[in-house]
Amino acid sequence: MTTQNANMPHRLDAEKLRRFISGVLQAMEAPAADADFVGELLVEADLRGVDSHGATRLPGYVGMIDNGHLNTTPDIKVLAEFGATTHIDGDLAFGMLVARKGMRMAMDKAREHGIAISVTRNMTHTGLVGYYTMMAASEGLIGMAMNNGPTIVPPYGGTQPLYATNPFSVSFPAAEGEPIVLDMATTMVAAGRLRIAEKQGLKVPTTWGLDREGRPTNDPTEILQHGHLQWAGGYKGFGIATMIESLTGLLSGGIFGTDSPPLKHFGQDPLMQSGCYIAIDPSRFVGMPAYGERVDKLTGMIKAVSPFPGGEKVMVAGQQEFERKREHLASGIPTSAAVYGELEGLSRRFGVAFDVE
Amino acid sequence: MTTQNANMPHRLDAEKLRRFISGVLQAMEAPAADADFVGELLVEADLRGVDSHGATRLPGYVGMIDNGHLNTTPDIKVLAEFGATTHIDGDLAFGMLVARKGMRMAMDKAREHGIAISVTRNMTHTGLVGYYTMMAASEGLIGMAMNNGPTIVPPYGGTQPLYATNPFSVSFPAAEGEPIVLDMATTMVAAGRLRIAEKQGLKVPTTWGLDREGRPTNDPTEILQHGHLQWAGGYKGFGIATMIESLTGLLSGGIFGTDSPPLKHFGQDPLMQSGCYIAIDPSRFVGMPAYGERVDKLTGMIKAVSPFPGGEKVMVAGQQEFERKREHLASGIPTSAAVYGELEGLSRRFGVAFDVE
Repeated sequence: MTTQNANMPHRLDAEKLRRFISGVLQAMEAPAADADFVGELLVEADLRGVDSHGATRLPGYVGMIDNGHLNTTPDIKVLAEFGATTHIDGDLAFGMLVARKGMRMAMDKAREHGIAISVTRNMTHTGLVGYYTMMAASEGLIGMAMNNGPTIVPPYGGTQPLYATNPFSVSFPAAEGEPIVLDMATTMVAAGRLRIAEKQGLKVPTTWGLDREGRPTNDPTEILQHGHLQWAGGYKGFGIATMIESLTGLLSGGIFGTDSPPLKHFGQDPLMQSGCYIAIDPSRFVGMPAYGERVDKLTGMIKAVSPFPGGEKVMVAGQQEFERKREHLASGIPTSAAVYGELEGLSRRFGVAFDVE
Repeated sequence: MTTQNANMPHRLDAEKLRRFISGVLQAMEAPAADADFVGELLVEADLRGVDSHGATRLPGYVGMIDNGHLNTTPDIKVLAEFGATTHIDGDLAFGMLVARKGMRMAMDKAREHGIAISVTRNMTHTGLVGYYTMMAASEGLIGMAMNNGPTIVPPYGGTQPLYATNPFSVSFPAAEGEPIVLDMATTMVAAGRLRIAEKQGLKVPTTWGLDREGRPTNDPTEILQHGHLQWAGGYKGFGIATMIESLTGLLSGGIFGTDSPPLKHFGQDPLMQSGCYIAIDPSRFVGMPAYGERVDKLTGMIKAVSPFPGGEKVMVAGQQEFERKREHLASGIPTSAAVYGELEGLSRRFGVAFDVE
């Protein structure tokens, strides 16, 4: 999850890693432009330090293709366009391609109507959800993106899984500085954070998960093996996850709630998601560049707040990820021996040169 | 905050209370239709058990009018209309009137474009934010509403106040059952919950607030007097609050962040808010009544989940409030002697008959 872990002996070059990922996917019949974009998205996650959504996912995508759960030559269909809305069926394509199309169409229509929305269904994993909202912000628009997924987390207070960790992102375009980029799962943490703590023999904050009896616990093994992840803010996070389910699976006509299959093994099990992508044009309200200047001003207000004694500096959403990206562009993407080995295995299987460092 | 407290000796009749509130505000020059709507909104909050936003606010509104912070004969102006957008200046009106106008215009434009947004500025307290999203749901639309406000809560990890508790609501229209209604502050709890615990001599969960050193504490007095409220889900709730600030104060051209005045005394201090109201028409996606049926299905899925041993039943967002409303319509709104006494005082001051039980 973070780049501060031990056991990251490799430093990968972003551009070389992109090409490698694209090469593997092209070997599995994906058109070059599609394969390039998946590479772009995975590497962007790695650059931003969101390792959980980076190159580590490639073996899983290959597995989904092997198992017929992901269509590398899809027919992504616009089911309906009306006013400021677009309704899209993803034909089990790489989720990235469907999400990008949804956000692109919302951005174009937002120029025309001031706000627009695309809702997508039948797509696979979309990767870093913040990517799509940053697309909007990079063109002076506010972007909002979210998706549902496999049943993993129970409702607040419940014992059977109902939703995915339902990620949500929103980005706000700045004038001078970096955009504000909120990109979060609606659970307190993702399972990956618990696995890292478990490996290191560490306890975790009691807000992260529940034991088999539904009580807060600091034992990552108990949470992973017998308990459940906890929502961010308890019933409030569950409420936000319900909003996301209702704007994605329910609205798209896709699957939702307990109708979504569970996900035991990423790559082997089917993974069908629905998404919602909204763009808003600030020039129809306070105006541009005035809006971007206000975003910069808010960023300044946040950074000016003093931390508690001994605490870390106060951060703006996305700030840490922009800092990591600068660092990783300069000195490479820190990569574990395990992920490196898996990628090497794909290189051998597909005969794609493994030149990534 | 809840109706389960001791010291609720009075049971008020909803219709009589509405008339009383309207009478007081009409005595302060508010037009009858406006005064009626404020009464409607406060009583709806009381009926739903959100006491913090009910008739208890009336003395504060009277104080704001006395102090020139609230304009009972405003000129609420549409600054711009473009496509699916409306930009509104509230002229320091009752926030309810401005928020209602914003949501109404978003609903009308959503029929035309599939989605629409209104952004408002320079309004006072808007009361129960869920009211506006339920307006949309009652007409088969998805509604989203939020607002910023006075500087009360510091950013995550910080020591100086930056935002209000930035409330957020979203409602989803059902076919047969009740809509799903999420209506929440982005802090873990409102200050009112801490005051109740303090009065009862109870400790609170450590996720609710921070002590003077920024450490989680279970002492409500320490939180209220020296510390701060905590965001729901820590930095994630702070991220959601930043989203709300950016979609309201920043986008409207109103005040935001530390430029908003603090609020020490509700009624005496100025209170200027910005809001954002979005409506989405499901008939442009999966269709209606199909969408409503899917909302009912999701509600059923949630209710079917077993609670943890000894835990409370699993709840859908808004369910508890609909249950309370049925109870309060049947047997009256439970009201403390303190609130009852304050209302009685307004009755004497304005010569409005106090017939509310």
